[in-house]
Amino acid sequence: MGKCSIPPVISIISKKRSGKTTFIVKLIPELKRRGYRVGTLKHDTHGFDIDHEGKDTYKHKQAGSETVVISSPWKISVIKDVRQELTVDEILESYFKDMDIVITEGYKNANKPQIEIFRSSAHSSPIYRKGEQKSLIAVASDIVLDMDVPVYDINDIRGVADLIEKSFLGK
Amino acid sequence: MGKCSIPPVISIISKKRSGKTTFIVKLIPELKRRGYRVGTLKHDTHGFDIDHEGKDTYKHKQAGSETVVISSPWKISVIKDVRQELTVDEILESYFKDMDIVITEGYKNANKPQIEIFRSSAHSSPIYRKGEQKSLIAVASDIVLDMDVPVYDINDIRGVADLIEKSFLGK
Repeated sequence: MGKCSIPPVISIISKKRSGKTTFIVKLIPELKRRGYRVGTLKHDTHGFDIDHEGKDTYKHKQAGSETVVISSPWKISVIKDVRQELTVDEILESYFKDMDIVITEGYKNANKPQIEIFRSSAHSSPIYRKGEQKSLIAVASDIVLDMDVPVYDINDIRGVADLIEKSFLGK
Repeated sequence: MGKCSIPPVISIISKKRSGKTTFIVKLIPELKRRGYRVGTLKHDTHGFDIDHEGKDTYKHKQAGSETVVISSPWKISVIKDVRQELTVDEILESYFKDMDIVITEGYKNANKPQIEIFRSSAHSSPIYRKGEQKSLIAVASDIVLDMDVPVYDINDIRGVADLIEKSFLGK
């Protein structure tokens, strides 16, 4: 499985419906194009559904299996009950040691380096004011903002990838 | 996460459409009722679909994320590309160390203790003849069979659970 240490992690954060997922799905191929193995971690606070009703793995889970795994020559999938929410560090340790970089969607309170996505059509102000959050390393915004970190255009995926590469991937 | 060693594993095997899943979804609650943390592992040789189109995690995977994780206070799920199929032992080591027992669906060639499900209405003979397979520890069948391992009625879930408990869980 290649390398085996904890990869750097960047949290993409925003207020609701500001386009975190949209931004991340553009950032992933840009980082992959540069040769990195990219993993992603989504934070879900409400409970999520995964798997399809009627599949064998779904039936296993419904029957009470606490850890359901399906393995093929190309892909492995795990659905696992937890007794308390795992921290980002625990998750990195368990599932991401063979990745070069991990992008989280959400995890505003995990104290990892953060990039905020700000869309002025969705909200009147970003989450953080200038200087308020020391984990913030950049903002990607659809308007000019006065911050003490770099502010990128919300479509400047290459600019953000350059920053990530330079700051966390030794380039 | 409690205990952290490799749990015992039992492979439930059969010819096609003999009711492996049906058997396993009855066995899981019987083992749980006895106080064990039960995990399950399904072997897929054709490639599987998991997750729902349109979900953020699905979009991450489509965008090229090689390891997608979604984490909530109750459950964690992982969808991960592999460069070659993982062995049962690698999977146990990575994902099942906090379980008491793991039941695999399939993995006939993994050399783990096996229980064959035989349904005479689906096939004319079991996979193995008497004495042919030393990993075989029992058969669950809808007819009487002459084997050198215990043959349980296909509905005798408690009998099979007793055997597993006695042989692998120190009861």
